[in-house]
Amino acid sequence: MAGESNAKERLVRTASTLMYVRGYNSVGVAEICSAAGVNKGSFYHFFDSKEALAAEALERSWAWMRSTIHERSLEDPAKGGLDAIEEYGVRLADELAQREAESGGVPGCVFGNFAVELSTQNENVRALVSARFDEMVDSASLAIVRSIELGEISPATDVDQAAHDVITLMEGLMVLAKARRDPDLLRELGPTMRRLLT
Amino acid sequence: MAGESNAKERLVRTASTLMYVRGYNSVGVAEICSAAGVNKGSFYHFFDSKEALAAEALERSWAWMRSTIHERSLEDPAKGGLDAIEEYGVRLADELAQREAESGGVPGCVFGNFAVELSTQNENVRALVSARFDEMVDSASLAIVRSIELGEISPATDVDQAAHDVITLMEGLMVLAKARRDPDLLRELGPTMRRLLT
Repeated sequence: MAGESNAKERLVRTASTLMYVRGYNSVGVAEICSAAGVNKGSFYHFFDSKEALAAEALERSWAWMRSTIHERSLEDPAKGGLDAIEEYGVRLADELAQREAESGGVPGCVFGNFAVELSTQNENVRALVSARFDEMVDSASLAIVRSIELGEISPATDVDQAAHDVITLMEGLMVLAKARRDPDLLRELGPTMRRLLT
Repeated sequence: MAGESNAKERLVRTASTLMYVRGYNSVGVAEICSAAGVNKGSFYHFFDSKEALAAEALERSWAWMRSTIHERSLEDPAKGGLDAIEEYGVRLADELAQREAESGGVPGCVFGNFAVELSTQNENVRALVSARFDEMVDSASLAIVRSIELGEISPATDVDQAAHDVITLMEGLMVLAKARRDPDLLRELGPTMRRLLT
């Protein structure tokens, strides 16, 4: 039934945006339904709970993030490893600036946001976010390996540690960018990782 | 009136703990009053709003953090700069482990939490948190300056940038520690800053 799947799709898309910009706890099911143009009865036909919708919204955000940001930077085999990390930071900064232009605030990282807001409250969401961080680290490790292969950095570099450093630094910059309302902080990711690795 | 000031003190202390462990939006005024043993009428005698209480709780958290963590690590003139940064990470890891033992979760950084949860929702809280990050960076810069004076790192080191890197990395580790429920991630702060700076 096309109408049904379309309603579900609208709910996931709307929740993904609202929860990203405003936070999970600040957005209610009624508001999501209203913004998506779906009645509340239909909501519970598709989802057992707000948490279940959040889990799908997180998956949606990750699919978007991977194809739009990761595959065009960290995972792009045509880019040198250090350049790819720099591109990753620049794309994230551009994305934050775009969101700021649309919403008036800097929403940070959707995964970091869920981690901070829900890790002590909801074990299921915490585990989902933690698994996404693992995938981000895997993505960064592709850039680190290319960097070693190209002789940009020492072959003795600890790939796992360096990839973890990329994601840790990115998340820290996201928190500061959000607090300072300064998307450009993400542009530091490339230069700082370059100093760390070379 | 001792009873009044005691009630206000209990409200600030209770809010500080509950908002740290569970998040600002997950805790209501009624629950804070109940946990503090203060009736709701008294609450509005002391505070105009939950936000006003949160602002005082943040100040309280910062005073505690400065005296318990910063003054005994980053700002301790008896410690070498790099050792002081390492001590900072170790004290934060110990603190998180203690909180995990008490509450079952890893609550992360109280300032990062407020930044993430409220920056797009509440300009007043965002500005308060941003100012605290500035103080943290100032605190870290004392360690960087000592490190230069002791000849541990190059005199050409950009002090402001390096101090900002300490706090950014700390916040990133806090997000990952919370998502992975692993307080020990904070122990990486010292070694990673050592690699970055030397």
